[in-house]
Amino acid sequence: MSGRREAVDALRAELHRRGLAGFVVPRADEHQGEYVPPSAARLTWLTGFAGSAGLAVLLLEKAAVFSDGRYMLQMPDQVDTDIFECRHISDDSPTAWIAAQLPPGGALGYDPWLHVETEVHKFEAAAHEAGGHLVACEDNPLDTVWSDRPAPPAAPIIPHDITYTGRESTDKRRELAATLVEAGHATAVLTLPDSIAWLLNMRGGDVAHTPLPLCFALLDCEGRVELFVDPAKPAPGLSAHLGNEISLAPPEAFGPALDALAGKTVLVDAACAPAWVLSRLDAAGAEIVRARDPCILPKACKNKGEIAGMRAAHRRDARAMANFLAWLDREGPRGQQTERSAAAQLHRYRETLPLFRGLSFPTISGAGPNGAVVHYSVTAATDRTLAPDMLYLVDSGAQFLDGTTDVTRTIAIGTPTGRQRTCFTRVLKGHIALATARFPEGTTGAQLDTLARAPLWQGGLDFDHGTGHGVGSYLSVHEGPQRIARQGHEPLRAGMIVSNEPGYYEAGAFGIRIENLLLVREDPDFPEMMSFETLTFAPIDRRLVDTTLLTATERDWLNAYHMQVRETTACEDPLWLEAATAPI
Amino acid sequence: MSGRREAVDALRAELHRRGLAGFVVPRADEHQGEYVPPSAARLTWLTGFAGSAGLAVLLLEKAAVFSDGRYMLQMPDQVDTDIFECRHISDDSPTAWIAAQLPPGGALGYDPWLHVETEVHKFEAAAHEAGGHLVACEDNPLDTVWSDRPAPPAAPIIPHDITYTGRESTDKRRELAATLVEAGHATAVLTLPDSIAWLLNMRGGDVAHTPLPLCFALLDCEGRVELFVDPAKPAPGLSAHLGNEISLAPPEAFGPALDALAGKTVLVDAACAPAWVLSRLDAAGAEIVRARDPCILPKACKNKGEIAGMRAAHRRDARAMANFLAWLDREGPRGQQTERSAAAQLHRYRETLPLFRGLSFPTISGAGPNGAVVHYSVTAATDRTLAPDMLYLVDSGAQFLDGTTDVTRTIAIGTPTGRQRTCFTRVLKGHIALATARFPEGTTGAQLDTLARAPLWQGGLDFDHGTGHGVGSYLSVHEGPQRIARQGHEPLRAGMIVSNEPGYYEAGAFGIRIENLLLVREDPDFPEMMSFETLTFAPIDRRLVDTTLLTATERDWLNAYHMQVRETTACEDPLWLEAATAPI
Repeated sequence: MSGRREAVDALRAELHRRGLAGFVVPRADEHQGEYVPPSAARLTWLTGFAGSAGLAVLLLEKAAVFSDGRYMLQMPDQVDTDIFECRHISDDSPTAWIAAQLPPGGALGYDPWLHVETEVHKFEAAAHEAGGHLVACEDNPLDTVWSDRPAPPAAPIIPHDITYTGRESTDKRRELAATLVEAGHATAVLTLPDSIAWLLNMRGGDVAHTPLPLCFALLDCEGRVELFVDPAKPAPGLSAHLGNEISLAPPEAFGPALDALAGKTVLVDAACAPAWVLSRLDAAGAEIVRARDPCILPKACKNKGEIAGMRAAHRRDARAMANFLAWLDREGPRGQQTERSAAAQLHRYRETLPLFRGLSFPTISGAGPNGAVVHYSVTAATDRTLAPDMLYLVDSGAQFLDGTTDVTRTIAIGTPTGRQRTCFTRVLKGHIALATARFPEGTTGAQLDTLARAPLWQGGLDFDHGTGHGVGSYLSVHEGPQRIARQGHEPLRAGMIVSNEPGYYEAGAFGIRIENLLLVREDPDFPEMMSFETLTFAPIDRRLVDTTLLTATERDWLNAYHMQVRETTACEDPLWLEAATAPI
Repeated sequence: MSGRREAVDALRAELHRRGLAGFVVPRADEHQGEYVPPSAARLTWLTGFAGSAGLAVLLLEKAAVFSDGRYMLQMPDQVDTDIFECRHISDDSPTAWIAAQLPPGGALGYDPWLHVETEVHKFEAAAHEAGGHLVACEDNPLDTVWSDRPAPPAAPIIPHDITYTGRESTDKRRELAATLVEAGHATAVLTLPDSIAWLLNMRGGDVAHTPLPLCFALLDCEGRVELFVDPAKPAPGLSAHLGNEISLAPPEAFGPALDALAGKTVLVDAACAPAWVLSRLDAAGAEIVRARDPCILPKACKNKGEIAGMRAAHRRDARAMANFLAWLDREGPRGQQTERSAAAQLHRYRETLPLFRGLSFPTISGAGPNGAVVHYSVTAATDRTLAPDMLYLVDSGAQFLDGTTDVTRTIAIGTPTGRQRTCFTRVLKGHIALATARFPEGTTGAQLDTLARAPLWQGGLDFDHGTGHGVGSYLSVHEGPQRIARQGHEPLRAGMIVSNEPGYYEAGAFGIRIENLLLVREDPDFPEMMSFETLTFAPIDRRLVDTTLLTATERDWLNAYHMQVRETTACEDPLWLEAATAPI
């Protein structure tokens, strides 16, 4: 904690030196992604808070850290509460706090690289309400005083083969260029590394769990791309792979390149672009059109090659899952394994698989009451021993060169209670309802979300998270624009991948979640309808299914699914697999 | 048609006289309601078009009528297409037409009493795009030339007894006044007759099918109301019923009363208030706060007295439905009855019921292919004879002093086809899924809409209308703010009434719809959940149910429902009722 005190003191001194009354420190970096590199972990450096979403406001006399419901319990453990108030980001939002606490006449600084436009507008209004004002800091005062700041990541950027991408970059760029021409836009600014990686068929390794190359790019209406990236990153051969329509420039050339768009119509996705980009374009005299990053939708709709890769990756991943679940049935009841050793074992099964490149996110390995913590992250202090009788929840996934996986299973160790079986069966009914849904074109994830919840609602149960998220192809395991959630207003289109992960959580007791990935496709039987193909293969714990609660159709689905698991999965313990997938 | 030609010529001459290049004639009156009195049927007078939604734009040389998909077929039959182009209101919207057709420099007139603010803004932008401008006409030029215009309605306004309203007006006004005080508003402008009727516990009869008194009102923050209404309307005794906190004033006093709000904070529901009201308040110097009419939500959440009345009204209405369906089973196959005679027969069964005050909307009586026309309105020309083999769809309802009903049944005359039975059973499955839904507080109609569609989607079917609408208590049969529809974003609250009316329509062949009204309530078994009580009792045609497609739970629901119908309904043909409600 004293380390944090020094950081706070140093930043306050710097703010004072610059005549600032305060400074906003978000968790985000310039790319607004889920993971940030250590060199951009400013929020953690200043406050100690290590959650995946949050924001601090440091004033000269007061300070507060804000995050969401997932982190309200752990925040006070990580943060020095003598310095920082811990607050909920929506109940008691940063803007209200700024409006109340910023001293009149005070200048509140922010780094325009780290915030999107709407955030800046909110802070501006809050500062005005307090009688102060907001100031963009061209150089970040925190970075000035961050003496032991890690170097920015410089993982090599490598070509991603056509075998995996399913489509040449030239094709993708031609198509997007045509949409720019049609809309009358000269250039699109790309600030999302996964958009750029998808567009140029390349991958990097600058952040954890996702093969992203941190970079910016400009796509013009003839399909040419100017890529702004640390010259140390491109691996040998990348330049040849990219071809002569892609020019490379160092990151510091990005600003001047924006200036050169003076007088042109420029598409910017204001939902994710740094406010800095919009200010620079505006100052340069470009005509800004705010619209969605044009890569997002074609990236979400996987092509045939990507779909084949996702299927192959999932069949491979199924081996690790089957081996792990067989191991768990042997080892779980013995009381010798813990949440951490189980996660490590699963990692070992995965890492030997062909094309494996790492986990797609930190494994959630929760035993007993820890399973009820939706975003549980096991630590030495919380590591629970597996033993009868408890439920064990494991949510994990892998990055393969040909695809990304994400699967959750809930396993009975010892004898489950009747209540646990009832709840599990209701979650399963919701899972099956979504997996078997058929729906007309134009249907959104918001409309389908209800199908996964209705069987839980019938029993007076619910779960406090979305039912599904999009998934990338050897890219981010959480990818938009589609979601299966009350707020998922994007229509589902053929080729999109979504997770199907209803759950139920009884605080202090147990957690249940059943997650497979689904591919959206045209329905094979009804040409005007859409439906899902389940991509994930792993046994669903039959001991937790109360068959009296299933309809005949649901039971048939489970048996057919298990038959498919058995037929497609090579398990080191074939007898176990046979029993685990036997009809019920 | 020649009558219309004269109307058009007269209006064009008047426009020319006033220096106007055109005039917008909407279907709406000053209250933006579903029905307008004959004195406000300007669109029909000018164009002949009699649909329930639409708009005409008359220019000196050109003219067009716009309506929605329901009316695209009938519009050319009613409208002189030598004068008017017939256009779809959203595919080819009036604003685009105005932007293309209004001559440069032309002044497009509109009556600010008949449009809401957002409409005016759209017309303004369209007129500017054409190089012209928009002009508010303080006196409507159409009214000037409408020589045989009917007198405005002046139906007596009568007290609505506490037995039916369940709550004193004083209580309602105290509660709303408290919310005005809390929000810092001095006054709320009320322009919706059903809001005013609800607030003051009174009813009128100025439009068809709905006991509305056309009027305006101001509610102040002490709960006093100034009611602007034709002095001929209040029935003897109304004044005493209203009490001394309600003052009556003639309609022409409304403008000066708005002027008197200068400097005050005034709530106006811009979604329904005439643009005229906002302009007048603005000119007077009032501070306008745009917010929802404060009566809408409490009116939607029925109180105990209203719920008791709705239940009683539905039990009474069930007698008429049972008698009618028994009659239909006898008469339908004989080939002597038609859509019109059947509707008349149903009316006869209803009109003898105690507290009956009229139909809640024109009965939709559609045989064979006419059943596939969702908003079918039988005419002499379309009147089809009932005979084997066909499906017959009847959607009807009544206004009773204690409640409003709305019920749809689809009946097999002769032998239904397998396809018809399959489709009917899928509609029934959707109906049951919604009727039996249990859901957490905060759930919206948009979320539940999917439940009614999913069984249809499974069979490759869907229907192109919402699943349900709100219903008033001896008020409008279509009442907001809640809906069961993709756009129904209002959370369902205890006491709300919604219809449950999934359907399926095969153009040129048959139509199916099954509609009951549902009451939203706290779930009796799960205290934190909500669910529905079905209010409507009428047999669902067992001959159309394919039991092999039902789950055990669905079959149990149907049998339990039919038992309730049998137990609560007195039918003149008890043997028929027994057979029609026998278990399947």
